[in-house]
Amino acid sequence: MPTTENVIIIWWGPAGHTAAIYTARALLQPLLFEGFMAGGMPPGGQLTTTTEIENFPGFPEEISGLALMNKMKEQSKKYGTRIETKTIDKVDLSQHPFKLFAGTEEFHAKTLILAMGASAKRLRLPGENKFWQRGISACATCDGGLPLYRNQRLVVVGGGDVALEEALFLSNFGSEIIMLVRRDVFRASKAMQEKVLKNQKIHIMRNTEAIECLGDTTLQSIKIKNNTSGEESLLECKGLFYAIGHHPNTEIVQGQITLDTDRYIITEPGTGKTNIPWVFAAGDVQDKKYRQAITSAGSGAIAALEVERFLEA
Amino acid sequence: MPTTENVIIIWWGPAGHTAAIYTARALLQPLLFEGFMAGGMPPGGQLTTTTEIENFPGFPEEISGLALMNKMKEQSKKYGTRIETKTIDKVDLSQHPFKLFAGTEEFHAKTLILAMGASAKRLRLPGENKFWQRGISACATCDGGLPLYRNQRLVVVGGGDVALEEALFLSNFGSEIIMLVRRDVFRASKAMQEKVLKNQKIHIMRNTEAIECLGDTTLQSIKIKNNTSGEESLLECKGLFYAIGHHPNTEIVQGQITLDTDRYIITEPGTGKTNIPWVFAAGDVQDKKYRQAITSAGSGAIAALEVERFLEA
Repeated sequence: MPTTENVIIIWWGPAGHTAAIYTARALLQPLLFEGFMAGGMPPGGQLTTTTEIENFPGFPEEISGLALMNKMKEQSKKYGTRIETKTIDKVDLSQHPFKLFAGTEEFHAKTLILAMGASAKRLRLPGENKFWQRGISACATCDGGLPLYRNQRLVVVGGGDVALEEALFLSNFGSEIIMLVRRDVFRASKAMQEKVLKNQKIHIMRNTEAIECLGDTTLQSIKIKNNTSGEESLLECKGLFYAIGHHPNTEIVQGQITLDTDRYIITEPGTGKTNIPWVFAAGDVQDKKYRQAITSAGSGAIAALEVERFLEA
Repeated sequence: MPTTENVIIIWWGPAGHTAAIYTARALLQPLLFEGFMAGGMPPGGQLTTTTEIENFPGFPEEISGLALMNKMKEQSKKYGTRIETKTIDKVDLSQHPFKLFAGTEEFHAKTLILAMGASAKRLRLPGENKFWQRGISACATCDGGLPLYRNQRLVVVGGGDVALEEALFLSNFGSEIIMLVRRDVFRASKAMQEKVLKNQKIHIMRNTEAIECLGDTTLQSIKIKNNTSGEESLLECKGLFYAIGHHPNTEIVQGQITLDTDRYIITEPGTGKTNIPWVFAAGDVQDKKYRQAITSAGSGAIAALEVERFLEA
């Protein structure tokens, strides 16, 4: 029989790490699974795929996502978090203590903090990997203000509310914002559409898709295709922003815990509580609205404080 | 007529600052009032009255509360926040744009982020100021793990759930925890009481009050008084933790916005929305449950993102 852990934290991002720092300082000896390359991401979550972070409070000099995550990792280790690089690929929440599996290895836990994050959807275009974070981003709020994008033509891909919000946000920085919408209609709300249509800097190309990314050290242009005529052309731009949604990394708990229609874990707002007692969720895996490093970290602390209360009660 | 600001942020703590960083990066040119010595605190909020902070993610080497707040201040200024040291002493939320007053000066704002924080209640004992943060603290969760308190006799003052939670938390670090309860009964829940009574390290002194703090460079003992017999005696201890509650700094909005029975601003959980459209609250002024620098910062980001959406809509 494996030891029953006080708390197991799944995945390593700002939420998982902050939960680890808090539970470690409460001497609960948390066990954190980094989830090596789970969800197609290296340990550290989405943050490690961004460049400089300007909006994590406490870092007036920008810090890279990876550097910030490494600081958090150092901090949670310092206070006693045990870190495993294994990926938890199966959980059994039907009995308490809960059972977790990494391949054939089994782990037991009294409480769980699910912090598996979400992954931004990508188009997987030719050239995309080469220019990722060198002109291509999946988060305008995170990256739009960077010098690379100031007073440049920027392209946003997507037709939902988030895409329109990102275009509006980018219109503060870029010289011109071009939105590529695959169909001839927006999925976004009427109010947002009106706002975008009124914005002089934003231009919309309907029935149009990006099909290739081109450049030298950074992105310089994209190849686009008109879906009606089939015509292809080159569009110069210094930034390409995907706003085609995220998918939460909830595969391992699907069918065992209550998810919303987009498969995000449903938590009681502001508490991290899931529908299963002793199981908490934090960060993007339960938040499709704010999705910031700092909000994620805050929710990790909340989940940890709830775990402490559960274990003390 | 004063200029109508996009957003005014009241007070300067992790919540106010993070809100400033976010709204500044969205080019909303936020105006932040530090609130010089408002609520009896210097700018920077409660955090500046703690010593080393070990649990703010991103700082594996401890950082002082003041240093962390100064970093946040530098960051929000860098992105364009205008900071005023004046204290807003009156607001008028009955019309939009809202009116704010600092003495006879008037300011107008489309949106407000209320981040006035809360202040820990103190006993105001003789010697208290001398040993504040040198053996006396109002936050066991923040300070209990510091080397100063390890394997020492620690005293907790208070009889509510929070006091019992703090005593349990401190029992992980101290050699003995003595709880001073003014009356002969606890206000705390039965479950928490049982948990505390079972803990070998925690001892309870009923009908007892602290009346004076003594020591050299740090606290060494307190004078206590039995409320029944009137007898006074000396109790050696290296730590004195107040757990007698907080009061939110909501005086200026009282009667204009919905508060709970403890006078905290009621927000829609996880959103920062108050009952008044265009008015948001963040940090301890609306949170009596978690009250951490990181949760406060997270809620500041959320309020800022809501403000951005309101102004864009």
